[in-house]
Amino acid sequence: MHFKLAFIGFGTVGQGLSEILLEKKDVLAEKYNFHFVVVAISDIMKGSIYDENGLDMAKILDLVKAGKKLDEYPTGVKGMNSLTTIKETNADTVIEVTFTDVKTGEPALTHIKTALKAGKNVVSTNKGPVVKQAVDLLNMAMTNNVHYGFEGVVLSGTPALNLAKCTLAGNIINGFRGILNGTTNYILTRMEEGMSYEEALKKAQKLGYAEADPTGDVEGWDALGKVVILSNVVLGKNLSWGDVERKGITEITKEDTEKAKAAGKRWKLIGSAEIKRDGSVKAKVWPEKLPLSDPLAGVSEAINALTYYTDELGPVTIVGPGAGRRETGFSLLIDLLEINRKSSEKIITKK
Amino acid sequence: MHFKLAFIGFGTVGQGLSEILLEKKDVLAEKYNFHFVVVAISDIMKGSIYDENGLDMAKILDLVKAGKKLDEYPTGVKGMNSLTTIKETNADTVIEVTFTDVKTGEPALTHIKTALKAGKNVVSTNKGPVVKQAVDLLNMAMTNNVHYGFEGVVLSGTPALNLAKCTLAGNIINGFRGILNGTTNYILTRMEEGMSYEEALKKAQKLGYAEADPTGDVEGWDALGKVVILSNVVLGKNLSWGDVERKGITEITKEDTEKAKAAGKRWKLIGSAEIKRDGSVKAKVWPEKLPLSDPLAGVSEAINALTYYTDELGPVTIVGPGAGRRETGFSLLIDLLEINRKSSEKIITKK
Repeated sequence: MHFKLAFIGFGTVGQGLSEILLEKKDVLAEKYNFHFVVVAISDIMKGSIYDENGLDMAKILDLVKAGKKLDEYPTGVKGMNSLTTIKETNADTVIEVTFTDVKTGEPALTHIKTALKAGKNVVSTNKGPVVKQAVDLLNMAMTNNVHYGFEGVVLSGTPALNLAKCTLAGNIINGFRGILNGTTNYILTRMEEGMSYEEALKKAQKLGYAEADPTGDVEGWDALGKVVILSNVVLGKNLSWGDVERKGITEITKEDTEKAKAAGKRWKLIGSAEIKRDGSVKAKVWPEKLPLSDPLAGVSEAINALTYYTDELGPVTIVGPGAGRRETGFSLLIDLLEINRKSSEKIITKK
Repeated sequence: MHFKLAFIGFGTVGQGLSEILLEKKDVLAEKYNFHFVVVAISDIMKGSIYDENGLDMAKILDLVKAGKKLDEYPTGVKGMNSLTTIKETNADTVIEVTFTDVKTGEPALTHIKTALKAGKNVVSTNKGPVVKQAVDLLNMAMTNNVHYGFEGVVLSGTPALNLAKCTLAGNIINGFRGILNGTTNYILTRMEEGMSYEEALKKAQKLGYAEADPTGDVEGWDALGKVVILSNVVLGKNLSWGDVERKGITEITKEDTEKAKAAGKRWKLIGSAEIKRDGSVKAKVWPEKLPLSDPLAGVSEAINALTYYTDELGPVTIVGPGAGRRETGFSLLIDLLEINRKSSEKIITKK
């Protein structure tokens, strides 16, 4: 496929994807018949730029990294806002990577709906819209004969959703269980080595794993959002924030981790959901003391892991990174490659 | 797609797949637009049966489970051998699951070549042909515009190959490392609990995990075949049996496992390959003492695990079953679903 891409938002994730696309341009063309131009970028801080024939992305990255505005790009149309960029450019695929309120899902939700209604594919790493309206948005994409991809919202570039949808196809998935937040797993790993919660949190903040206000991670909200997404997208349920029991890791003490260690166990913050016999789903985010024989117990540092419970294969687990600028950027490429694969197969048939 | 399937060989794996197809008939039709009839079965022990309109597979399974021959099936053409069945029936897809010599790859190799040349898709769980000629056979399939699938040869139904090809697409995979043999992992798990090698082997044999002559597993030959397959299919190299360093687990003593345990480590039989800077590949099967922080250390019992080293995501690991009648049968469905997906997308485009 020959993509015409528009970035809505151009922060670290968008820049991460841009670097990957530039570096892998030849490989993508040769191996997957994947071709692209970036025709537009609109960012609330950095300004916006549109050229229907494509932008020089190396030049764009240089500008942005030098702290300059997109208006300094020598040619093209300036000043289009996000909605105009979505609706009025020749882009066929919108990369939605704005800073978005995870609770309201905005402004991403409006961007995504506008793009889908305009018959444009959307790939996005924004969690909010998926937590709130995954099923509606997927239906809207189907109605408009386009694709809405959001691989990055669960484990960044570790392909948790693609695994369930494509690779485990043919199985019925009845539940899942995972380490869905890297920050808390990093903190628990340090605590097991002897740090207090406070020391471990400080170290995580210093390394950029935890934010100044760490509530979203340590109280389990981030993991909870992912439990909602997996329950709705993979298990086919219809949960919202309030349907998931939640407890974070802030009450785990150094003594707790030492005691667990002495008993051959490890504390992990586990996000899980299970379809019960009556079809209802029991979902929670809760700290658990795992025996070392549990595959999730061996997952240390900021690494994530997710076990799907399948009818044919029993538990199948994937372990990989769950965050990172480049990794999250890469998750968008997974989505783009899925659009490309569908499209390429259509082209082959047309020959 | 409306498959017309022919089974070449009808042992436990073929029967496993048949059960899955029967049980999931409606789900497969509804969810994946996957339809099938089995038109032919040819088995060197059980006889053969062909009906161009399709066989009653519930009846067939009853016959076979009662130890009867396929000749007792009330209608249809009897007596066709495997090659005639491949060439002269109306099957479009051949399920090759014969007992095959893993060293020579026969008779599977001849079956697969015959089918591909006749323009029929092949799915097969036979390792031998893949170890010997994966690249040639894949090219032969491409030339004849059909599909050759062999997901089951590495980790049975745990989709190791599909993960690399589809789900991790866009990454460059530079190496892998895994627990590729369930029998040895089961034995090592029991030894860690205090059994001697001999006791653990006996228990594995009793449970059907190990054969009467356990050499293939315990000396690392089975894992070696998988290292060759992964090196050639995933890393794009051209290895054969002799190119892989090999040491089994027979020299590991109870004392070794105790010492490792005391040091917070675990013995695992690791199959691995790594592309070096000059493009050559270093491949081996060797027992390693892993720290408990290694994700592979937490993989116990007969479970398998495989870590791919990728350029964008770093290590990504999949953990799941590596054997089993039903699991291996299911691996064939993964391959059939891939053929179906390609075909369905062609049909949608034609509309």
